[in-house]
Amino acid sequence: MIAIIVRRGNSHPELAEVPDPIPEAGEALLRTLRVGIDGTDHEVIQGNHGGYPEGDDYQILGHEAVAIVEDPNGTDLEEGELVVPTVRRPPDGTNDYFKQGEPDMASDGHYVERGIVGAHGYMSEFFTSSPEFLVSVPDSFAEYGFLVEPISNSEKAFEHAFASRSAFEWDPESALVLGNGPLGLLTLAMLETPSSPFERNYCLGRRDRPDPTIEIIERLGSTYVDSRETSVNMMPDAHEAVDLVYEATGYAKHAFETVDALMPNGVGALLGIPSNWEFEVDGGRLHREIVLKNKALFGSVNSNVRQFEAAKTRLAEFPNWFFDEFVTGVYAPREAEAAFKTGDDIIKTVVEFDTQ
Amino acid sequence: MIAIIVRRGNSHPELAEVPDPIPEAGEALLRTLRVGIDGTDHEVIQGNHGGYPEGDDYQILGHEAVAIVEDPNGTDLEEGELVVPTVRRPPDGTNDYFKQGEPDMASDGHYVERGIVGAHGYMSEFFTSSPEFLVSVPDSFAEYGFLVEPISNSEKAFEHAFASRSAFEWDPESALVLGNGPLGLLTLAMLETPSSPFERNYCLGRRDRPDPTIEIIERLGSTYVDSRETSVNMMPDAHEAVDLVYEATGYAKHAFETVDALMPNGVGALLGIPSNWEFEVDGGRLHREIVLKNKALFGSVNSNVRQFEAAKTRLAEFPNWFFDEFVTGVYAPREAEAAFKTGDDIIKTVVEFDTQ
Repeated sequence: MIAIIVRRGNSHPELAEVPDPIPEAGEALLRTLRVGIDGTDHEVIQGNHGGYPEGDDYQILGHEAVAIVEDPNGTDLEEGELVVPTVRRPPDGTNDYFKQGEPDMASDGHYVERGIVGAHGYMSEFFTSSPEFLVSVPDSFAEYGFLVEPISNSEKAFEHAFASRSAFEWDPESALVLGNGPLGLLTLAMLETPSSPFERNYCLGRRDRPDPTIEIIERLGSTYVDSRETSVNMMPDAHEAVDLVYEATGYAKHAFETVDALMPNGVGALLGIPSNWEFEVDGGRLHREIVLKNKALFGSVNSNVRQFEAAKTRLAEFPNWFFDEFVTGVYAPREAEAAFKTGDDIIKTVVEFDTQ
Repeated sequence: MIAIIVRRGNSHPELAEVPDPIPEAGEALLRTLRVGIDGTDHEVIQGNHGGYPEGDDYQILGHEAVAIVEDPNGTDLEEGELVVPTVRRPPDGTNDYFKQGEPDMASDGHYVERGIVGAHGYMSEFFTSSPEFLVSVPDSFAEYGFLVEPISNSEKAFEHAFASRSAFEWDPESALVLGNGPLGLLTLAMLETPSSPFERNYCLGRRDRPDPTIEIIERLGSTYVDSRETSVNMMPDAHEAVDLVYEATGYAKHAFETVDALMPNGVGALLGIPSNWEFEVDGGRLHREIVLKNKALFGSVNSNVRQFEAAKTRLAEFPNWFFDEFVTGVYAPREAEAAFKTGDDIIKTVVEFDTQ
């Protein structure tokens, strides 16, 4: 079959012929429809994650997929059923995190990640998976079901944010998303769905108008904040202190400035993954601010089946126009190079292997 | 009546004759038994908090009290009933935080604090209070009931710590208390009660043996960690990474080093109140560590009636020897100066106005 891979030692995606996957007992064979591309894929290509699948000198890319059951192979799945696969798998056998349905909370060494570290991803005509790692989605998800995975990451962050504020009456009204990349915009769309309790949402970026991400931010009903004019810690003066900050920039100073952007009793969710960076902070003031105003910060990575299910419900609430504006390119596998291009006019691209 | 006060412009405690308090309608008159002294009292004396009660040029000190109902004054209380008062009061009328029973989550301007900021404390022969701010305690609490208030602050921190980890299966086994001051030792004793889930507890200090706090730490069954040999971020190598860090030092670097002392999925509770202090951190590494290991940090201040009730239950679990070792001095009001002395052989002192 054909697949989009990165070879050991290379740092570009490449179309290749790879062996067809053969489902083991208890695994189904899936036919890939679409696979989204995000920043993690670029990091994998650049070798930041490393960890090729054991015995292979290449890794099949992609972790945001929607697929169709080609062969249930004795599992409870039905041929033709639409599914979205989760990302983490136990490295050998299983472990408590997976048994509890919480692989997202597993620590290093207790998981591999398909398409990211130690396991092949989904950018191939077919892949195999045990049904426990597949979330069934309606037929209407064939085009945009690949967004369930990134949305599930924010569902986890929201779940943890509300949990962290559950010891008291917390009625959040305002949120600030740091970063107008694909994950930032998806999260902003989540905050703007009819069922969201958030009434006033902001999204921070560093772009000049006209810009397609600013257009999406404003069409969603949110306020664009230009970080070149308004730094994160200036939010209370420039707009308002917010109940929730969601960081998806990987810019480490944002993690610290988040403390000042928050209302008393507010919470900051950190999802970016920065490199080492030493800088000065007024640690005394930040520490005091956190304590005296009951503020909280937490980190969140990956997501579990429960959060994929929540993402399914959330995605169904998105307005139709959003998908047209958000997905700026649909590419055939042979257009891999174009699919992985980045730029200010590119928001989210997807590789289409097949259609329903 | 007599009271221990600090006068505007002074920075020492002083015994003084002040007007007897007269309960308003809906308030009871309380006769003070004992009032504990802690670091906050020293900060009040040094003028760090400021905020004298409106119209007065002095403030009655003390916020850790146990008292007896002298005159119910038409309230549901009974004469002779033993009570512990909470600290925060609405500044004028009430507000949503107080209506919800969560004055501990109130932001600046929505509360005064008795004995701390804007309201007289309990270091006087009598005080008045509405019953909603009094927690009834058994007669056996006459001697050590004043510890309910500091313990309640840690009950709140524990409540928030568990809440912040409630979105997944969290089974903490180990905890590190930063600081062997009175609040640190009380919290360690809480972690070592029979009903506590924590099996291995550590307490950080910077003292040489023999030392009365190290003796308490070890008699409780915990491990003493000397910060001069083992800094907070060295915990994983020197002992183990812990599930919970409880910071009660007000040393701002500890807040940042806490991230490295934590196990994956662990949580750090910050309670210290440092002054401004700029220093360098590897913000990128800390940010990444928080995200990839699902770690959390939060601040916690004050406590509410529910947490006072939990503290009551907790205090009843403390071993008897603990009180004898922990309370190093009981002073009459006229010995105010001695009661406020500090030193390595002094752990917790208390002013006794009356006995049951």
